[in-house]
Amino acid sequence: MTTITFIGAGSVEFTRDLIADVLGFPELADAQLVLHDIDDQRLAASVGTAESVARQRGVRPTITACSDRRKALEGTDFVINMIAVGGHAATTADFEIPAWYGLRQTIADTIGVGGIFRGLRTFPVLEGIARDMLEICPDAWLLNYTNPMAMNVAYLAAVAPTLKVVGLCHSVYWTVRGLCEVIGVPFDEVSYSSAGVNHQAWVLRWERDGQSLYPLLDARIAADPELRRRVRVDMYRRFGFYPTETSEHSSEYVPWYLHHDVEVERLRIAVGAYIGISEDNLAEYASTRAALQAGEALEIDRDSTEYAPQVIHSIVTGTKRTIFGNVRNTGLITNLPQDYAVEVPCAVDELGVHPMHVGALPPALAALNRAFVAPGELAVQAALTGDPKLVRNAAMLDPNTAATLTVDQIWALCNELTAAHGDLMPESLRGALVL
Amino acid sequence: MTTITFIGAGSVEFTRDLIADVLGFPELADAQLVLHDIDDQRLAASVGTAESVARQRGVRPTITACSDRRKALEGTDFVINMIAVGGHAATTADFEIPAWYGLRQTIADTIGVGGIFRGLRTFPVLEGIARDMLEICPDAWLLNYTNPMAMNVAYLAAVAPTLKVVGLCHSVYWTVRGLCEVIGVPFDEVSYSSAGVNHQAWVLRWERDGQSLYPLLDARIAADPELRRRVRVDMYRRFGFYPTETSEHSSEYVPWYLHHDVEVERLRIAVGAYIGISEDNLAEYASTRAALQAGEALEIDRDSTEYAPQVIHSIVTGTKRTIFGNVRNTGLITNLPQDYAVEVPCAVDELGVHPMHVGALPPALAALNRAFVAPGELAVQAALTGDPKLVRNAAMLDPNTAATLTVDQIWALCNELTAAHGDLMPESLRGALVL
Amino acid sequence: MTTITFIGAGSVEFTRDLIADVLGFPELADAQLVLHDIDDQRLAASVGTAESVARQRGVRPTITACSDRRKALEGTDFVINMIAVGGHAATTADFEIPAWYGLRQTIADTIGVGGIFRGLRTFPVLEGIARDMLEICPDAWLLNYTNPMAMNVAYLAAVAPTLKVVGLCHSVYWTVRGLCEVIGVPFDEVSYSSAGVNHQAWVLRWERDGQSLYPLLDARIAADPELRRRVRVDMYRRFGFYPTETSEHSSEYVPWYLHHDVEVERLRIAVGAYIGISEDNLAEYASTRAALQAGEALEIDRDSTEYAPQVIHSIVTGTKRTIFGNVRNTGLITNLPQDYAVEVPCAVDELGVHPMHVGALPPALAALNRAFVAPGELAVQAALTGDPKLVRNAAMLDPNTAATLTVDQIWALCNELTAAHGDLMPESLRGALVL
Amino acid sequence: MTTITFIGAGSVEFTRDLIADVLGFPELADAQLVLHDIDDQRLAASVGTAESVARQRGVRPTITACSDRRKALEGTDFVINMIAVGGHAATTADFEIPAWYGLRQTIADTIGVGGIFRGLRTFPVLEGIARDMLEICPDAWLLNYTNPMAMNVAYLAAVAPTLKVVGLCHSVYWTVRGLCEVIGVPFDEVSYSSAGVNHQAWVLRWERDGQSLYPLLDARIAADPELRRRVRVDMYRRFGFYPTETSEHSSEYVPWYLHHDVEVERLRIAVGAYIGISEDNLAEYASTRAALQAGEALEIDRDSTEYAPQVIHSIVTGTKRTIFGNVRNTGLITNLPQDYAVEVPCAVDELGVHPMHVGALPPALAALNRAFVAPGELAVQAALTGDPKLVRNAAMLDPNTAATLTVDQIWALCNELTAAHGDLMPESLRGALVL
Repeated sequence: MTTITFIGAGSVEFTRDLIADVLGFPELADAQLVLHDIDDQRLAASVGTAESVARQRGVRPTITACSDRRKALEGTDFVINMIAVGGHAATTADFEIPAWYGLRQTIADTIGVGGIFRGLRTFPVLEGIARDMLEICPDAWLLNYTNPMAMNVAYLAAVAPTLKVVGLCHSVYWTVRGLCEVIGVPFDEVSYSSAGVNHQAWVLRWERDGQSLYPLLDARIAADPELRRRVRVDMYRRFGFYPTETSEHSSEYVPWYLHHDVEVERLRIAVGAYIGISEDNLAEYASTRAALQAGEALEIDRDSTEYAPQVIHSIVTGTKRTIFGNVRNTGLITNLPQDYAVEVPCAVDELGVHPMHVGALPPALAALNRAFVAPGELAVQAALTGDPKLVRNAAMLDPNTAATLTVDQIWALCNELTAAHGDLMPESLRGALVL
Repeated sequence: MTTITFIGAGSVEFTRDLIADVLGFPELADAQLVLHDIDDQRLAASVGTAESVARQRGVRPTITACSDRRKALEGTDFVINMIAVGGHAATTADFEIPAWYGLRQTIADTIGVGGIFRGLRTFPVLEGIARDMLEICPDAWLLNYTNPMAMNVAYLAAVAPTLKVVGLCHSVYWTVRGLCEVIGVPFDEVSYSSAGVNHQAWVLRWERDGQSLYPLLDARIAADPELRRRVRVDMYRRFGFYPTETSEHSSEYVPWYLHHDVEVERLRIAVGAYIGISEDNLAEYASTRAALQAGEALEIDRDSTEYAPQVIHSIVTGTKRTIFGNVRNTGLITNLPQDYAVEVPCAVDELGVHPMHVGALPPALAALNRAFVAPGELAVQAALTGDPKLVRNAAMLDPNTAATLTVDQIWALCNELTAAHGDLMPESLRGALVL
Repeated sequence: MTTITFIGAGSVEFTRDLIADVLGFPELADAQLVLHDIDDQRLAASVGTAESVARQRGVRPTITACSDRRKALEGTDFVINMIAVGGHAATTADFEIPAWYGLRQTIADTIGVGGIFRGLRTFPVLEGIARDMLEICPDAWLLNYTNPMAMNVAYLAAVAPTLKVVGLCHSVYWTVRGLCEVIGVPFDEVSYSSAGVNHQAWVLRWERDGQSLYPLLDARIAADPELRRRVRVDMYRRFGFYPTETSEHSSEYVPWYLHHDVEVERLRIAVGAYIGISEDNLAEYASTRAALQAGEALEIDRDSTEYAPQVIHSIVTGTKRTIFGNVRNTGLITNLPQDYAVEVPCAVDELGVHPMHVGALPPALAALNRAFVAPGELAVQAALTGDPKLVRNAAMLDPNTAATLTVDQIWALCNELTAAHGDLMPESLRGALVL
Repeated sequence: MTTITFIGAGSVEFTRDLIADVLGFPELADAQLVLHDIDDQRLAASVGTAESVARQRGVRPTITACSDRRKALEGTDFVINMIAVGGHAATTADFEIPAWYGLRQTIADTIGVGGIFRGLRTFPVLEGIARDMLEICPDAWLLNYTNPMAMNVAYLAAVAPTLKVVGLCHSVYWTVRGLCEVIGVPFDEVSYSSAGVNHQAWVLRWERDGQSLYPLLDARIAADPELRRRVRVDMYRRFGFYPTETSEHSSEYVPWYLHHDVEVERLRIAVGAYIGISEDNLAEYASTRAALQAGEALEIDRDSTEYAPQVIHSIVTGTKRTIFGNVRNTGLITNLPQDYAVEVPCAVDELGVHPMHVGALPPALAALNRAFVAPGELAVQAALTGDPKLVRNAAMLDPNTAATLTVDQIWALCNELTAAHGDLMPESLRGALVL
């Protein structure tokens, strides 16, 4: 029997989708699902959600709530991490304080000052989970969903190098689905591969019957001026490979768009979009709770295609799959910084998750990725060494931040965000740093 | 429709097995099979063989004989290389001349003076195939079966770096099957992984339900003194991981056994075994021809499990498989020489053959592999640079040769074998080298 | 007798300084100096200059003018490259066209659109020199002074990997001299080391009697608000290590300063400074010619401290020196892109120039350097592959350009500069690229 | 004032030579010399020696005896390590037990079973020194003379990665001096470079006026049959580069000579030579003590040319020198195992010892070196992991041992030597390992 522990299970919509997928596999129908959250109300809601899903799937897993994290790890095979340290309040700070300085962000969870501070407040909790796992369930896999993905995976690789970790994200999958819709080719007929860094990986191959589908995309773009009003299309036209995140998200990873009003307008970029998403999440949580209290069945997303249930199923049953996973760069992509995280194709089978060798990315893609990696790498180093200067350097190296603010503004902004996040920050990085 | 070209198709038994497997896949039943050999009689026999197999399979592929190699490559998708340059005569020389000096060999096709000279006479032909492919069918895969595998793959990586090449060998598969038989565990219940160099890779993982099976093997070995009279078991007991070639073969890759009569006796090593195998091949070829002329159906090996048909099937259909393939070491195994060939797990799907990252081998295994790699690497360099001294250095670095002969003997032996192989040798390496 | 060939000898002031230093070494007083330039008038001026310097030094070298480059290379031991492809006109275009788009530059010869296009028009000439050398004087050293240094060294490493090349620049030396002046410590009492990329290397160690001198610098900076109005001091305060180029120059390598009026003011950045320098060079050339025609003695810069004469002297005499040279990154700095150029300490002796291993730079310095490397790496790749898209990508990845212009502006600017440089551009990169 | 601590100072002849050289430098004449040994009698002799040398040099250093190692390290700048763990008795065991099995050794301190066990008993003491240094004098340099050099340097790199360590050996220097004598060219007119592993490095360049001197050597060898009766000459003729250790020593690093009586005879190899050397050392120690007690002046070796005094002098005064030092392979030699020790040219100046980048060795030399490295690497790993199997694997991978004994003999021999060295062995590696 397979045991799966959900850390941060109170993200009930996500828990619902994952559990629905898990229980959709007959081999996992009797799984033991251990739900953990530090918020008791959310934990209760996650249990209700799991039970509701199980009923709809018509299966009888063992569902356990566990507010003690170490206990939740006992005997487990898989740990799915979905924590959001600081919650909605911290997210709001990550947007509002930079906005006050004139810095635009869209999602702010990956790089940028938002991503950097999200990383910094996540690392201590992540390290606790890793330490507990090495002690309590050293053979279990940690399947991480928490952002900033690349920073988190790199941080784990540094503090818990022997832990089995893979970071999972659906951006590659949905990117290719979307591309197929654009050109009107059925997704099922398509083969594809991608590599790079999470949220800025590149669709390196996208083929049907051995032929590249990019020429079809070119034709569509040429025919449709509105298509050209997407950040990703703009980047694709200039770099030759499609990036794997939404246009909103992609806009904040590069230095070209957000600080020009004209570009925000031209590319219809939804500045501050994530604030709304975060509020929607709160609302959806409330309605889920209401539905559970009312005894209503929760709707299952039949189109869910998250990797974690697939990875678990492959490891349990030996079914071979390829996923795009986030792992330490051990020479996998030769022209990106070693030891930071990369997102590469991984074969999954009963022996685990096996990253495939990619080699060198086309040089312009590698150069872009390296600029994307810089703030993450420095944020990780800041936490590892306890050097608060590196937090400021991380923000200075962030392409969008660097293109928008002066160095004094960046410094002040970091001091302010440090104060705002208070005790969530790693101990050595708290307090203002005055030049 | 898939086109497959067989180079050296006159190895009729092997051609028979491969074609039987290919045609066993419904999706490949209409494949175009193009057979090429430089020996017209053998080429005719291979056609007869292919037709006989097709009849037994009840399918109707297109079967073409083609004595012009460049023509045989036109429009092909896969090239299976099975050439044996010099044939039985050259093989005999590879055994008899060393034996005269007192050097024992068993198979002599991998490393050792036999392997080195087999490599040297194969490289020019291999280079010709690679050049033709890059010109005529640059997108086709070259599936190499010809030994010395690692040298050949490394040579191809040097002279045709853009060619899609994977070397295929069943030794990992049969090693694990054999291990399962020894401990009485069904092969189907077992998971395994292996990495190293072809013919000296290591069974790194061998598990059932997540538990290592090595303790069961230890128990069997402890209980059975006869088991301990195998070279592989002897190596396993001392190094902790099982090597993936037969005991005969393994004995000639290491410095410990063949030059001690007592060890040859203790471990029952069949010195010179391959001479008999080569003669059996000739006899089987004769009987196949006789059977074909008599119109008899050829027997199909229902247990054949070669990788080439599986690789073709996976690339054509997208069926995911894992094979153990030989590819250039691009950081895949970090503590073996880079750019030489390694044998690693590879995921295969419609996008091709994707080597998985292995990392560092346990240090003693890497050290053994590096000694195994040395003669191959120097033989490849000898051919690339045209430096005949490197041929002698290759032989001097061969563990078994070095442990048996004096340096003057090794030198004389290389001169003699060079003379024996005459024009089969690369042009720059012909003639004696007198110190 | 040592032969030294000066390519682009018509840069008469530089030729004067180098020859003065060369002839200041007794062991080189009888050197054969071969002067080459494609401009006959300048070539004549360089001969006059050399003769004047020799007279003042009181020595009698052999001085030859040679307008045929291949002839100038015959029998030479050292080739000093000082060419400036396109001259003042091209330099002016590199400033004026970007300025029209609103892009500020200061020197524009290293990275940035100016540096990229300077590189692109230099590569073909550089490749010609390298090919000639490999044919005519394959054992000679190429001592390169021409900018963009790192791009040029990287390009040479790609097209002529066996050529002995080192790029020489006095920026490290003068940076440390300047630092010593700031804190009032005699330069002669100081030890220092530096590594990074040319024009953005870092003073990693700066010591007297084994003690770091940075605390003295910190004290001076704290005491003097005017000191803080230097770009380099601003960067030093934030990153902890001093960069090795002037503040003007440094400002255009990073995304933070030039596009903010307030920062240009605060840091007193001389936008467009090099136009004046280039004009001064023209004026100095004119006055040198006038002086030579009038038979006046040229003034020798007694303070000249260029590396080329020192390197030649060390190789000729075996005198051990340490210089900071630009070479291919062969693992010397482990966290910068491999195979691009780096500037590292090099030991020089009669066996040549020997780069020392540096290891990993502090992570924030490496991140900054990687952003600096990106436009250069892509410009080199553009020329190697003939892909005009990579020229635009190079400009898009340039930190200052990216922070100032929109992507459409960058694209248009590249098209315009491509047109402006006409036939000086590599053939495959000419013409507009319309999206 | 410079402080130098001598660990194992009781090696009085060596202490005498080093101190004589140190005090020969005027800048070091007032050095503080701290002598440490665990043998009080030897320690007293070393003090007498030092005082005698100082008198002869006519200088007045401060000479201190210190039997407490931690105290001896207080305030020191340089630590010279010359310990010989186990002394003559252990050395004798290292020869006699293998000889009983039929294994011939000559010096037995580098690789081979002698070298492996010397390493194993040295590691714990070395680790103690390193730990003390990191605590007491973390900025001091550790100049190691103790063999097995490469193993010791690699072990230190693993257990004390931040310690400043360089291993020093005069073999390169004396090899080149000897070569110059053979061809009758003054050493002072010669330039040379070497790289590889200590005791098996290669004279890669050996030139006068830019011309290789190897052709002169070839002519001498052709003319003199007796010259060909040297192991090193035999290796040079076959590999093209001269190895840097005596012929006796070189013979035990390779698989070709010692197990053939005819080769021992042909090459006049002094089997067991080091037993005599070790006895001579004891005798010389006795005579030194007698001389000191009689108040006689000790003879100073005017020809001493050890690196340690030169390194100290360069670091103290900034005088630039090149030495051949043993350091961790951080990509310095690209085709030898990374992180093990290599011997490469190092620039020395006031900032320390700076390894130069070497790149790839010629492939046959790298292959030989890798076989040489194997036993050392496994011995180091055995101590780091506490796995006694790796000790046996180390011996099995030793070229000479592997070519001589059966695997059972090697196993038994390791058990016997383990017993013989008793408590000198690392704790985890004591006791027999029965298969």
